[in-house]
Amino acid sequence: MGEEISNKQVILNNIVKTSVKESDMSLRTSKIQLKIPSGCDGAVLVKNLYLSIDPFIINRMRPLEGYYIASYTLDSPISGYGVSKVLDSTHPNFKTGELVWGFTGWEEYSLIKDPILLFKAPDKDLPLSYYTGILGMPGMTAYAGFFEVCSPKKGETVYVSSASGAIGQLVGQFAKTAGCYVVGSAGSKEKSAVALMKVDLLKNKFGFDEAFNYKEEQDYNVALKRYFPDGIDIYFDNVGGKMLEAVLSNMRLHGRVALCGMISQYSLEQHEGIHNLFNHLITKRIRMEGFFVSNYYDLYPKFLEMVVPLIKEEKITYIEDIAEGIESAPRALVGLYSGRNVGKQVVVVARE
Amino acid sequence: MGEEISNKQVILNNIVKTSVKESDMSLRTSKIQLKIPSGCDGAVLVKNLYLSIDPFIINRMRPLEGYYIASYTLDSPISGYGVSKVLDSTHPNFKTGELVWGFTGWEEYSLIKDPILLFKAPDKDLPLSYYTGILGMPGMTAYAGFFEVCSPKKGETVYVSSASGAIGQLVGQFAKTAGCYVVGSAGSKEKSAVALMKVDLLKNKFGFDEAFNYKEEQDYNVALKRYFPDGIDIYFDNVGGKMLEAVLSNMRLHGRVALCGMISQYSLEQHEGIHNLFNHLITKRIRMEGFFVSNYYDLYPKFLEMVVPLIKEEKITYIEDIAEGIESAPRALVGLYSGRNVGKQVVVVARE
Repeated sequence: MGEEISNKQVILNNIVKTSVKESDMSLRTSKIQLKIPSGCDGAVLVKNLYLSIDPFIINRMRPLEGYYIASYTLDSPISGYGVSKVLDSTHPNFKTGELVWGFTGWEEYSLIKDPILLFKAPDKDLPLSYYTGILGMPGMTAYAGFFEVCSPKKGETVYVSSASGAIGQLVGQFAKTAGCYVVGSAGSKEKSAVALMKVDLLKNKFGFDEAFNYKEEQDYNVALKRYFPDGIDIYFDNVGGKMLEAVLSNMRLHGRVALCGMISQYSLEQHEGIHNLFNHLITKRIRMEGFFVSNYYDLYPKFLEMVVPLIKEEKITYIEDIAEGIESAPRALVGLYSGRNVGKQVVVVARE
Repeated sequence: MGEEISNKQVILNNIVKTSVKESDMSLRTSKIQLKIPSGCDGAVLVKNLYLSIDPFIINRMRPLEGYYIASYTLDSPISGYGVSKVLDSTHPNFKTGELVWGFTGWEEYSLIKDPILLFKAPDKDLPLSYYTGILGMPGMTAYAGFFEVCSPKKGETVYVSSASGAIGQLVGQFAKTAGCYVVGSAGSKEKSAVALMKVDLLKNKFGFDEAFNYKEEQDYNVALKRYFPDGIDIYFDNVGGKMLEAVLSNMRLHGRVALCGMISQYSLEQHEGIHNLFNHLITKRIRMEGFFVSNYYDLYPKFLEMVVPLIKEEKITYIEDIAEGIESAPRALVGLYSGRNVGKQVVVVARE
């Protein structure tokens, strides 16, 4: 028998209808044995170190149909990506003491019964938290969405929305390495100081050619024409809605749109419609494609080969917004939808 | 000097705001010399035999912006695809007496000053009118849209709207040759007898697995679930609007949508919006692509290699709706938008 210790968890209290509030979640302390129960083959018991706070979480807080991943169960811990340390394993691929990243629970310790989405996190020269970001799911998403879905060519014009976020900051930097002209937008519903900081980061830290605060623009169409007088070849969409519609009307012939996420729509009861697809998509022969990073994880080794040297040579940079303690997870999640975070939102549960 | 003879023309009277009426066009008789004027190098003078009546015509009857082909000039003949005989040529590629198809005018004789979209029509074993349809632009559109844009695989499910039209009837038959399950919809705003005939053609002449009259369906979603209980892999969209939205919610994982045309939207002042793109495109990882046949004409020889034997071996069939005389062109065009035609709408100007 392993030691039984207390396990703080973030629980979903109720189904979320529109926007998520901190009170939709609560903190609970349960007990867990630090050993995999007998008869539980192929499982991994982990201590969670970093939780990745991602936009898709809200979608799992309501009933989902079809092909998306499952909704959360009420009164159970929220789950998502994280970085963890293996405490016990009955799975042949994972050993006690190893560091891993992938799907885990919003709790101090998790018993992962079927670790189908768990990867090793071996690179000790880089911050471990990077496996929630540049070296993890957001990194792979930026890589697959930009290089695989958008097929960029040198000299093309690229627009990234939500550009200072976990994925956007990388898409912009990847686009610069590919020889593209890149413009990013960012913003914040709360404080203009945060928005200023984000726009400054885009230009001065991530090397975007231009950047703007979308909250200050009356008309997205006018803003896009200012930065793309000859139109947009590639749009990496993290927001959807009215911005997507404005971008489509500014796309160039044979443009490509990677639909990564639609954070502007997740809190709406009825999603906004995109009008005039004939003018947008047919006359300009646009390809618009929704994608999931999970279809591209076979490229993970190839991605690491590209990105690790870029980080070590300081040719690419990554900004994280780190909140301390599992107690901060509900507030960190809520802040994501109002743009309070600057960079990838991470929660530290424990540092080792 | 060539002989000067009378030349009946179909003229655009005014800009079309919503739906097109016969009175938006009129017949005029002008004069033309049957010889290319001196100093007009690289031109072709043709006698028009068959005019191709196509859905895109209405779009050129109003002001157009951006990347689409130019609007018509008021009080000038309408132009579009047709089959013609060369009467005189100062262009090195075309000789007097040759049969050609491509862009010409809605008139008895046309002086084509810059024949950039003109192809030879050499196959004398097949009906010459086929170069307005299966052997011309609609054939190439069906071929490029289905094989190049949709990348079909054997056993996949395919849905075609406006399936008895110039392009749809071919997409369905191509899909059957590719080993797919194919369902088509057709309809008519006017007479249910026409709709019955179309649905009958789809099943009994073109070999679609199932067919339905969309005008009889209260809820497209219910109709699609009836014919595609496990969802749709490929949608060849000729109509847009509410049908496109219903199809997107019935697409399968990794489905592909070729946006060919949106005839349901052309007569509307404000196009309908497509909602819920997040659920439609991202969670199911759908690729949606607008395309123009003009980007694929380099495949025309390859297309002919495939399609001519299929026609000669009667493995593929093609239905035309032929109206007699250039005077019938305005009525034939108007009928297209209410679904009055059964099969490819052609106007015979002269038989030789």
